[in-house]
Amino acid sequence: MLADAQHLDTQDPLKSIGSAFALPQGVIYLDGNSLGPLPIAARERAVEVTAGQWGTDLITSWNKHRWIDLPTICGEQIAPIIGAGSEQVVCCDSISVNLFKVLSAALAMQSDRHKVITTEDNFPTDIYTVEGLQEQLGTQRCELIKVAETDIERSLDEHTAVLLLTQVNFRSGRLLDMQALTSAAHKKGILVVWDLAHSAGAVPVALDEHGADFAVGCTYKYLNGGPGAPAFIYVAKRHQRRFRQPISGWMGHATPFAFDNSYAPSQSIKQSLSGTPPVLSMSVLNAALALWADIDMTHVRAKSIALSEFFLEALNTLGLTKELTCISPLIAEERGSQLAFRHEHSYAICQAWIDAGVIADFRAPDILRIGFAPLYLSFADLWHACEKLKEVVESRAYLDEKYQRKLAVT
Amino acid sequence: MLADAQHLDTQDPLKSIGSAFALPQGVIYLDGNSLGPLPIAARERAVEVTAGQWGTDLITSWNKHRWIDLPTICGEQIAPIIGAGSEQVVCCDSISVNLFKVLSAALAMQSDRHKVITTEDNFPTDIYTVEGLQEQLGTQRCELIKVAETDIERSLDEHTAVLLLTQVNFRSGRLLDMQALTSAAHKKGILVVWDLAHSAGAVPVALDEHGADFAVGCTYKYLNGGPGAPAFIYVAKRHQRRFRQPISGWMGHATPFAFDNSYAPSQSIKQSLSGTPPVLSMSVLNAALALWADIDMTHVRAKSIALSEFFLEALNTLGLTKELTCISPLIAEERGSQLAFRHEHSYAICQAWIDAGVIADFRAPDILRIGFAPLYLSFADLWHACEKLKEVVESRAYLDEKYQRKLAVT
Repeated sequence: MLADAQHLDTQDPLKSIGSAFALPQGVIYLDGNSLGPLPIAARERAVEVTAGQWGTDLITSWNKHRWIDLPTICGEQIAPIIGAGSEQVVCCDSISVNLFKVLSAALAMQSDRHKVITTEDNFPTDIYTVEGLQEQLGTQRCELIKVAETDIERSLDEHTAVLLLTQVNFRSGRLLDMQALTSAAHKKGILVVWDLAHSAGAVPVALDEHGADFAVGCTYKYLNGGPGAPAFIYVAKRHQRRFRQPISGWMGHATPFAFDNSYAPSQSIKQSLSGTPPVLSMSVLNAALALWADIDMTHVRAKSIALSEFFLEALNTLGLTKELTCISPLIAEERGSQLAFRHEHSYAICQAWIDAGVIADFRAPDILRIGFAPLYLSFADLWHACEKLKEVVESRAYLDEKYQRKLAVT
Repeated sequence: MLADAQHLDTQDPLKSIGSAFALPQGVIYLDGNSLGPLPIAARERAVEVTAGQWGTDLITSWNKHRWIDLPTICGEQIAPIIGAGSEQVVCCDSISVNLFKVLSAALAMQSDRHKVITTEDNFPTDIYTVEGLQEQLGTQRCELIKVAETDIERSLDEHTAVLLLTQVNFRSGRLLDMQALTSAAHKKGILVVWDLAHSAGAVPVALDEHGADFAVGCTYKYLNGGPGAPAFIYVAKRHQRRFRQPISGWMGHATPFAFDNSYAPSQSIKQSLSGTPPVLSMSVLNAALALWADIDMTHVRAKSIALSEFFLEALNTLGLTKELTCISPLIAEERGSQLAFRHEHSYAICQAWIDAGVIADFRAPDILRIGFAPLYLSFADLWHACEKLKEVVESRAYLDEKYQRKLAVT
């Protein structure tokens, strides 16, 4: 299959983008869905923002280098990647904090309803944030309801204030139908919050077209913004005047530098902001996001599907499908840009595979998760990765003591 | 007075620390209370964490380089600077977000009380955060009361849940008496939240000794952590089991990597955490904080007072006190590490002074604010700065069109 892989690589419209990344020699990186690799421009920006801006221009950099505008500059860079028009996205805080803001605001807009419906296997922080609000506001104003992915639509009722969904499941990679679910929710007067953690930069997202109300997402996975890079918030234009999030810090004020001693919310997307932005992280993100200006998300999606289908075929060819049980949807259109496999020794296999030069990801309790990031992965990479996986699995190398379980991070 | 200044510099026990900073040639920096300058170790760390850790070790850095522990590592570095014992401080988010957490938790602990008292000229974000909670929870659970600095004690009553104070006023520099005010509040059953934005690294703080309940603070001023560097939270050990903040993201879970689908709060200070930390910013902060390991805060305070007294004397000697009205307390022990002056043309003077090589700070509406950061400022610097100020003021150079008002940032 190597020849097939090499042929596919020659046809790849994204192949020139790979050279924008500083990937270490000898490593095949299948974990860009946890932490995207370092863009060369981001590495350069880290030096520039530190030595060149902070070091040289000090406080004057807030205006001179537009640090103060980074949340909106990065927001505008993210907007086209997620199908959002201008002035609807800002970059700030973490997904957890942003979910808290958006859910609070949505609940306040739905004062005669109290249920927040989400999936029982949503990413934990999404569930936890609703639990935090439930405890703070009481179940009469916020009641968390967890349902199976297959039961979402039938669970929506006239008491439901908000439907909170992650578009691509962090374990299985299942891709929910944003258009159908948003439409079903709207028919019942429900606001929808989409978490795009595993979709921004991985699949085409059409927030405006599908009528989404709010969205949050992170930038350190497929957007390659760096570890813990700031997250983002989308608030549809039609909601921006009523939207009122409670973490009303000075950056969300209509005129922050007037230093008024009472809060007057910005009437724009900037009301989503709270405190001072983490400039070093956000400036590096700004450089990483510049890569996306010329990228067509339909090419990204086509290559993502081709990569994952090739991977499944390679596993089959190498006789690995009896050891590793795929728990992702087998129809490519029903998943994001990842595949998940169940194995009793997934953690140890993941560690042994790392030692063999292939970095993938383990998710508790027993899942080996493979991310397909089309900007820098080649089909030949995948073939070599599968060959190494075969060695690890067939040799039972993973049973070695040194591969026993420690912590791992999303 | 230059000879006096030079003599004072030779006696300075902190003088060797100045070389740890990469200050630009020809600039006198009197704005370390807005944004501390670049420590050389921070510049090196920015390269290391980007190219060396993210670029080379990718996702494995979360464990290999202890990214996951940065919030507690930085918290433990900050703790001794603010008089806190171990396991009571973590680094995360912004002051605005952290205030929201701490105020929410404190209100929940005081369910039979509803007032939050703060000063009418507190930093805006402190006031705005209470307003956000007031709107979210209703005035029956959270009612903001703004009082004059001189009326704090007499305003405390049996309906007061929380007293929220910034230890050093961001405009005037007035230093509140933490011990007396905390004690007065406790006698009436009130919890006290201290904002240390302008005190951490500027004045000795004794949170444990003075019985503080909660504190927040920032690291980009006197702690030199970089623009928008992550803030911190202090929760006194005695409150940690009852403390329950509502932004319950996955990093505050007792076992985040178990990916449980219901929230179980950490029983430690880590429950204050919400989302994934901004690693680049926090790693640079970690390097900047290392400088403090060998610094005695009594030396810092002594030099801070000596610098500000020298500055006042120099203004007097140069005949500038009739133009610039000092609005800071004239008794050194009653202020933090800054002086504020009122002038009709403060903004323009600040800009013209920058052009002359001296960076200070303007605060709306008419305040020129001078920060005295003892780690890198010399007495000779101050003398030269004052001479330049005299030129700017006496020549009326500041009236030039080019110095007219634009934005400025804290």
